[in-house]
Amino acid sequence: MNVFVIGSNGQIGRHLVKQLQEHDGHTVTAMVRNKEQAEALLADGVKAEVADLEGPVAGLKEVMSGCDAVVFTAGSGGSTGADKTLLIDLDGAVKTMEAAEAAGIDRYLLVSAIQAHHRENWNEKIRHYFAAKHYADRMLELSSLNYTIVRPGGLLNEPGTGKIKAKKDLERAFIPREDVARTIVAALDEPNTYRKGFDLISGEHTPSEALKSL
Amino acid sequence: MNVFVIGSNGQIGRHLVKQLQEHDGHTVTAMVRNKEQAEALLADGVKAEVADLEGPVAGLKEVMSGCDAVVFTAGSGGSTGADKTLLIDLDGAVKTMEAAEAAGIDRYLLVSAIQAHHRENWNEKIRHYFAAKHYADRMLELSSLNYTIVRPGGLLNEPGTGKIKAKKDLERAFIPREDVARTIVAALDEPNTYRKGFDLISGEHTPSEALKSL
Repeated sequence: MNVFVIGSNGQIGRHLVKQLQEHDGHTVTAMVRNKEQAEALLADGVKAEVADLEGPVAGLKEVMSGCDAVVFTAGSGGSTGADKTLLIDLDGAVKTMEAAEAAGIDRYLLVSAIQAHHRENWNEKIRHYFAAKHYADRMLELSSLNYTIVRPGGLLNEPGTGKIKAKKDLERAFIPREDVARTIVAALDEPNTYRKGFDLISGEHTPSEALKSL
Repeated sequence: MNVFVIGSNGQIGRHLVKQLQEHDGHTVTAMVRNKEQAEALLADGVKAEVADLEGPVAGLKEVMSGCDAVVFTAGSGGSTGADKTLLIDLDGAVKTMEAAEAAGIDRYLLVSAIQAHHRENWNEKIRHYFAAKHYADRMLELSSLNYTIVRPGGLLNEPGTGKIKAKKDLERAFIPREDVARTIVAALDEPNTYRKGFDLISGEHTPSEALKSL
């Protein structure tokens, strides 16, 4: 599969691009915001496309055309306001869903947040962030795309263990970003993840094993 | 119809409650945030229920049970942050849709904003607000409810003229809040507004005439 990664300069995105680049069965196209980022990736041998999540759907469609799958792992981050949470994490995400549909790309994986599907379990300090993720998830479920929603727990920068736990509902716990990326790679062509969402934390099984028994 | 008004202390909401109270064919139940607001309404002869848009769906379902229609004209307003826009204008609205579905109330009218359905026409200064309205509208369209989405232009406090223009798409213009409320009252049981959205500005026809030729 040629995988189109949105949020490729993010902390999960960087792991994901690297893992896909090293993968025998996949190639990667990284979406970035500007030419400098594209040139930096190109220097590492990664194909890159420049586009803006705050721009029109047509521009997003154009850059992802010809790819087989889209992964959305972008986010406005903690240093911008809740207005950007609405425009990037929600509207930006949904625009890429519409772009994928328009480009005839069927497979779409979205990185969400643990328990985003249950309002009563949203993190009180950032309820608005969980609301944005919640509605991005729901719009994807209501789309025609063959989706997978990955809802990781607290994200760590430490090296991955390669072992995860994945289930529809899990108690909040932690997981290294490297393992989130591994789980996305394993989910790409795993039919047991099609049209499903799952919570994700560190555990005792390889991503491949864990996803087969969702 | 017994009409449940959410946002009854807002500027459109106050007109709407008054008009429904004076209407021969309808009665009104006003949702408010606290007991003091409820008592003030009761003193004016208006039935009121206390509930919180940031609370659970179950509480919203309980207070609206037995009503025949829901009107959502609440908003977090300009003095709170975009986090509240997400939690009130989007999530609060969708929770009342879920509550209406759970309570077996079929008819639901949502006050949105002119051109919220077209991203390219969102007001640049408050794009995040338009994004919140956009997704509340889309969630309603994807619901099982018999909806009407009313998308007024710039809102004025001057007295209404009783004359409006309503169409799927209109150039941005203005309309007194009193006329928005009149249009909602006229739309309640007008079959030509069922499962439709329309832009709304001041014009040359009565609400009843304008809605019949949508």
